[in-house]
Amino acid sequence: MLKFVSLLLVLSFCQGLQHNNIDDYVEAEPVFEASKYGSLWPLPQKVQISEVSFKLSSSSFRIVDAKTSSAGPSCSLLQSAYRRYYEYMFGSAKKQWWSKNSRRSDPSDLIELQVWITSPDSECDGYPSVTSDESYELTVSQPVAVLKAPKVWGALHGLETFSQLVFEDEYGAKSINATVINDFPRFKHRGILLDSSRHFLPIKVILASLETMAMNKFNVFHWHIVDEQAFPYLSRTFPQLSEKGAYHPYTHVYTPADVKMVIEFARLRGIRVIPEFDTPGHTQSWGKGQKDLLTPCYSGSKPSGSFGPVNPILNTTYEFMTQFFTEISTVFPDGYVHLGGDEVDFTCWKSNPDIQKFMEQQHFGEDYSKLESFYIQKLLDIVTSNKKGYLIWQEVFDNGVKLKADTLIHVWKGNQEQYQNEMASVTASGYQTLLSTPWYLNRISYGQDWQGFYKADPQDFKGTDEQKKLVIGGEACLWGEYVDATNLTPRLWPRASAVAERLWSAKNVTDIGDAFNRLSLHRCRMVERGIPAEPLFSSYCPHEYKGV
Amino acid sequence: MLKFVSLLLVLSFCQGLQHNNIDDYVEAEPVFEASKYGSLWPLPQKVQISEVSFKLSSSSFRIVDAKTSSAGPSCSLLQSAYRRYYEYMFGSAKKQWWSKNSRRSDPSDLIELQVWITSPDSECDGYPSVTSDESYELTVSQPVAVLKAPKVWGALHGLETFSQLVFEDEYGAKSINATVINDFPRFKHRGILLDSSRHFLPIKVILASLETMAMNKFNVFHWHIVDEQAFPYLSRTFPQLSEKGAYHPYTHVYTPADVKMVIEFARLRGIRVIPEFDTPGHTQSWGKGQKDLLTPCYSGSKPSGSFGPVNPILNTTYEFMTQFFTEISTVFPDGYVHLGGDEVDFTCWKSNPDIQKFMEQQHFGEDYSKLESFYIQKLLDIVTSNKKGYLIWQEVFDNGVKLKADTLIHVWKGNQEQYQNEMASVTASGYQTLLSTPWYLNRISYGQDWQGFYKADPQDFKGTDEQKKLVIGGEACLWGEYVDATNLTPRLWPRASAVAERLWSAKNVTDIGDAFNRLSLHRCRMVERGIPAEPLFSSYCPHEYKGV
Repeated sequence: MLKFVSLLLVLSFCQGLQHNNIDDYVEAEPVFEASKYGSLWPLPQKVQISEVSFKLSSSSFRIVDAKTSSAGPSCSLLQSAYRRYYEYMFGSAKKQWWSKNSRRSDPSDLIELQVWITSPDSECDGYPSVTSDESYELTVSQPVAVLKAPKVWGALHGLETFSQLVFEDEYGAKSINATVINDFPRFKHRGILLDSSRHFLPIKVILASLETMAMNKFNVFHWHIVDEQAFPYLSRTFPQLSEKGAYHPYTHVYTPADVKMVIEFARLRGIRVIPEFDTPGHTQSWGKGQKDLLTPCYSGSKPSGSFGPVNPILNTTYEFMTQFFTEISTVFPDGYVHLGGDEVDFTCWKSNPDIQKFMEQQHFGEDYSKLESFYIQKLLDIVTSNKKGYLIWQEVFDNGVKLKADTLIHVWKGNQEQYQNEMASVTASGYQTLLSTPWYLNRISYGQDWQGFYKADPQDFKGTDEQKKLVIGGEACLWGEYVDATNLTPRLWPRASAVAERLWSAKNVTDIGDAFNRLSLHRCRMVERGIPAEPLFSSYCPHEYKGV
Repeated sequence: MLKFVSLLLVLSFCQGLQHNNIDDYVEAEPVFEASKYGSLWPLPQKVQISEVSFKLSSSSFRIVDAKTSSAGPSCSLLQSAYRRYYEYMFGSAKKQWWSKNSRRSDPSDLIELQVWITSPDSECDGYPSVTSDESYELTVSQPVAVLKAPKVWGALHGLETFSQLVFEDEYGAKSINATVINDFPRFKHRGILLDSSRHFLPIKVILASLETMAMNKFNVFHWHIVDEQAFPYLSRTFPQLSEKGAYHPYTHVYTPADVKMVIEFARLRGIRVIPEFDTPGHTQSWGKGQKDLLTPCYSGSKPSGSFGPVNPILNTTYEFMTQFFTEISTVFPDGYVHLGGDEVDFTCWKSNPDIQKFMEQQHFGEDYSKLESFYIQKLLDIVTSNKKGYLIWQEVFDNGVKLKADTLIHVWKGNQEQYQNEMASVTASGYQTLLSTPWYLNRISYGQDWQGFYKADPQDFKGTDEQKKLVIGGEACLWGEYVDATNLTPRLWPRASAVAERLWSAKNVTDIGDAFNRLSLHRCRMVERGIPAEPLFSSYCPHEYKGV
């Protein structure tokens, strides 16, 4: 018998009735059973677990660099990961710290985990990228376990997996089964979008999200940092943008030091930070600190006093964007920037006589999407000259803007049929794409909505194998209209965990019952690690969340 | 100009677009404007606010017993309320505590709030009840403010109201406008149901809920303490009930000391604690520790090994219930107990040959609701003999069980038309009733669902004035299938606040725009007091929640 269950026992009853719930909402209630994969989440590509188990002594167990590893003690990324995972595994153990710290070696002990970076360049001091090798192999056998990975990024994932294999036996002794795992992600881009404009998100919440993303093997933090409502990004070049455009110029901004901290915290967990600066729409907050950036709207022949999207007909606009995105390219080390480009409302442009004149000069007729394309094209050139790649929301593709071959098209609109058609159409044009439509986690509904997130598959559309290969992944989005630090974490987890497994594990990992069993344990583990991840269904965790 | 706004400034933009939200969900977006009632919530019955304002010095302002008050320094309920509200009002103030604490009296200062209990019996050491007088009058005028209330219960509400009137001017100075308020609740019973069976709720979460209930003038904590899934109530008489029936016999139970603490914490805030012990259905967890309590189900001619509702045909059942409810009557001081009685499934009773025989003897035919009534009748007699009143879910009334005249019928089923018909029918039969159907807060949906809660009115049904008077209030219910300590508080607040105003304020307080403005400030105040109440919409609070 595998002993995973004793780590985190969850009970739930299968009664036909659901107390006092309106009848038409009653669902089939799941029953918890231990999965043969224990609490592994997301499920690795290949797993073999034996029935033999070893004990881990908190006083003697060590995570060490393998002698032949290309990453040694100077690789602080791994060293801090060792400490982090040691604390996850043994932190709550009431070990006899006062007893002599002898590394006694009981014959049934697992004494160490050797971490072996096999490639000459461990990438320890670099940043993760879309081409990073995230694979790893983990062999747990007595007396040592070995974690082999070409790069540190795979080692980070392997450490998480190792920590997920450790459980407590009935006496509370930390134990692990002999195991062989061979693992790599199905998709290269596995992201979470957080929105710090509709509500300001204190750094503490962002860091907690990154920490939890690592537990779920997400590797992209899509930081939707500014929007209509507020401009919390403190720009060195244009400080007046947040001075005027943030909810508050001191308490509700991200300073350069804050941004740096987020990026480094993410890097240490193998997570890329892709900022989004969405234009030409969604820019009301930009206009407060940057004169003449937005289009003045007209009421009849006079300016109405309100403003529309970025003004695409002024040279000053492009001078501003050049300087601004040059700063962004320096501040954010990732190879990609998200440029937005969604939901541009033409009403204001149409009302403005200067814009009308420009349309005539350019022979755009009445087609304002041509004006939008004109703007976007120039913006893309600016970003390209900074040697950055870009992501854009699907409208930019839909409007026929000329795009670089390596552009990533971010699909977010429509129902299932519509987004699947869009994925087919984008990939038929040879572009890479990533999917978000089915994963708008801000859209809450009663019951186990994680199952819907879990069932969506970004490669389920009509297309050739070549087309399918152009799908680089997806992102779960938590838009901020109804979310701030008070409710973000339990709303994100474990619902985003469903997306994490879809993007990491093999396509055929679709057993919803097995997923429920593993995810129930995974969520209790997140709770034990201090993350208020909400419950899937009636049940309990051995260590409940103690905050309020 | 009133200066409430500077207390808690909230901004929100009225854009036609809602970034990246699926179009059919786009809603009209509210704009924040200061209400002439500032941040008062729930709105008092009569409010007159003048434009004259006074300052409050944190070093000299005092809350004192009026000389003629019937409650003096020995009334620890009031003394601890004074401290609580002083801390709410001045806790975050960075006052010059090192300067000499001279009670200097600036001519424009408000120097004290005198609390005057006018009735000879203040009820300071008693428990609140359904007949408690909760009214108060508050006069803020220079140099002293006076809070007059017949009983301490009204004084508690008045202190909350007073604290809601205090704001910070643009220099951070605590200020208050000259004000006259005359206030009392529209309904006597304003409750919150929490469910500690589907998930165990640590005491800390329950106390935080009580604290926040007081901020919203709720006065009943309906503790749905046990159910199918778990029996966390540690009974002195039958300790095996939680020993076997709780999720865990030590970490997931409420000890007598815990229960006592909850009741006293609630009393100090004017809140009644009404426990619910739901029978004969919803009792799977009872059966684990109490042999022969539940009905053995049969498969053909043999017991199937599973159990159904409480076995209504055994004398031992009634002996158990007599002892059990005698204990409950002692442990919980409130005059009422909730006896449940909902959703009884007859399948198991029908399968059992002994029950079939009993049905014949009693001439019940095939009508198992008669058997249910037989059980409930005997249970009601037991509870009555303990001198307790009872609440029951509507099914018990629907099934025609004979009830005491003072029974409260709790309506929870159906759609709007159905529950309004039920309210009409219950009150036509002369029973008092309270409503929960429209206030199932566990049912989450995207967007501002508080507006739906706000619009429901428990007296909106066809009936005479006499019938309307039989409506004693309502309860917001947060069932626990998908709720535990990780997500309870932001899911409850400020959504339950909408119900709080409906049950307290005058029937004609229905302006949803004004409610949005006051509630936005009220929720920021809850956040400032340490409660992670979730946002209503895009906006910010001066002091954001700092937890994770």
